[in-house]
Amino acid sequence: VLEIITTDAPAVEGARRKHKFEQPPYTVRKKLLWAAYEEIYRHGYQGARVDRILAAAGLTKGTFYYHFPSKLDLGYAVVDECLTRTLDIICLTPLREGSDPIATLGSIILGSEVTSRRAVELGCPLNNLAQEMSPVDEGFRQRINAVFLTWQSAIEDALRRGQVRGVVRTDVDVEATALLIIATLEGCIGMAKQSRSLGVLERCSKGFLKLLDGLRP
Amino acid sequence: VLEIITTDAPAVEGARRKHKFEQPPYTVRKKLLWAAYEEIYRHGYQGARVDRILAAAGLTKGTFYYHFPSKLDLGYAVVDECLTRTLDIICLTPLREGSDPIATLGSIILGSEVTSRRAVELGCPLNNLAQEMSPVDEGFRQRINAVFLTWQSAIEDALRRGQVRGVVRTDVDVEATALLIIATLEGCIGMAKQSRSLGVLERCSKGFLKLLDGLRP
Repeated sequence: VLEIITTDAPAVEGARRKHKFEQPPYTVRKKLLWAAYEEIYRHGYQGARVDRILAAAGLTKGTFYYHFPSKLDLGYAVVDECLTRTLDIICLTPLREGSDPIATLGSIILGSEVTSRRAVELGCPLNNLAQEMSPVDEGFRQRINAVFLTWQSAIEDALRRGQVRGVVRTDVDVEATALLIIATLEGCIGMAKQSRSLGVLERCSKGFLKLLDGLRP
Repeated sequence: VLEIITTDAPAVEGARRKHKFEQPPYTVRKKLLWAAYEEIYRHGYQGARVDRILAAAGLTKGTFYYHFPSKLDLGYAVVDECLTRTLDIICLTPLREGSDPIATLGSIILGSEVTSRRAVELGCPLNNLAQEMSPVDEGFRQRINAVFLTWQSAIEDALRRGQVRGVVRTDVDVEATALLIIATLEGCIGMAKQSRSLGVLERCSKGFLKLLDGLRP
């Protein structure tokens, strides 16, 4: 999950109407959520500031508390809604719709140029939050873990379908491999982030692609 | 780098003398450093509190500022001295002294029971700090990156010596492989941490060991 998906978020310009109260609550909530997603991606949950989120979304504190009782509720909603949605667009849907899971998984790590640059600068939004909040807050940990488990079982399903179709080796341990694929992907993005180097991401990706290639019959 | 190495740190009981001023400054400094290492490992650098570090080390604020002008200097020293020393004991020395780098690297991930439990609970101290501080502070980023580069070149050297000795395949791209080994190792520890599961660490490790096994002639 390398990149913010803004297709789900209202375009800032387009959503800017004359009067805030004209916006349907659903849109306001989404605006808040995606502004929070970006703020948390940049600063971590603990470093995220509600005033910056509100400024980015062009909303008031009152609006915030109308939708979320606290910063923690907003943080949880970012995991449940934004991270889940991002994962779905980047990985789950392509895996479900594609016929070759190995090619699909391979295309995730380098993604687009924008995606790679964001990964080098900021890492992976899901794993950042996992590493920051899992040891600190059980509510975050369980929600984040649920996203990882969804991801894992989507990879498992795709590999199994690939085995049936003959594009994945039948002796591959599907569960262990899905876990290793996520770990390696996150490890590569983490190395790119700490070194701030696109070259590191590219070199690491080669190893990841080789791992995937080893799954072909 | 999974575990605090306390062999370098003075044993708390042994170092507890009647009068604090009897302790040679070198010992006091080390005590502070290793207490900070543990505090940062548990709470992150930004969450680390100097008062908790002082309480753990049994030292006063005056002693702290005698050795470190600020929390930031202490944080940098933890990277330069503690993380480097930990890495050296866990990985660099075994790689230098061992004759089979693949076996040595394989023994790192599961380590001892204590090591694994700490990894599941808290993750890797080096990677935690890298993921937290690299995007936030350039001083941390450069120091942490230097530790990763030292690690990487130690693995490269060991793999090259292994190639000469015939225990590593000669067609292995030593640089790309060293990077991938670190990424995969860190990815596995990260997955164990976010899931809080020793089972995840063990299953992930199997994939890591398979990757290593693929390097054998």
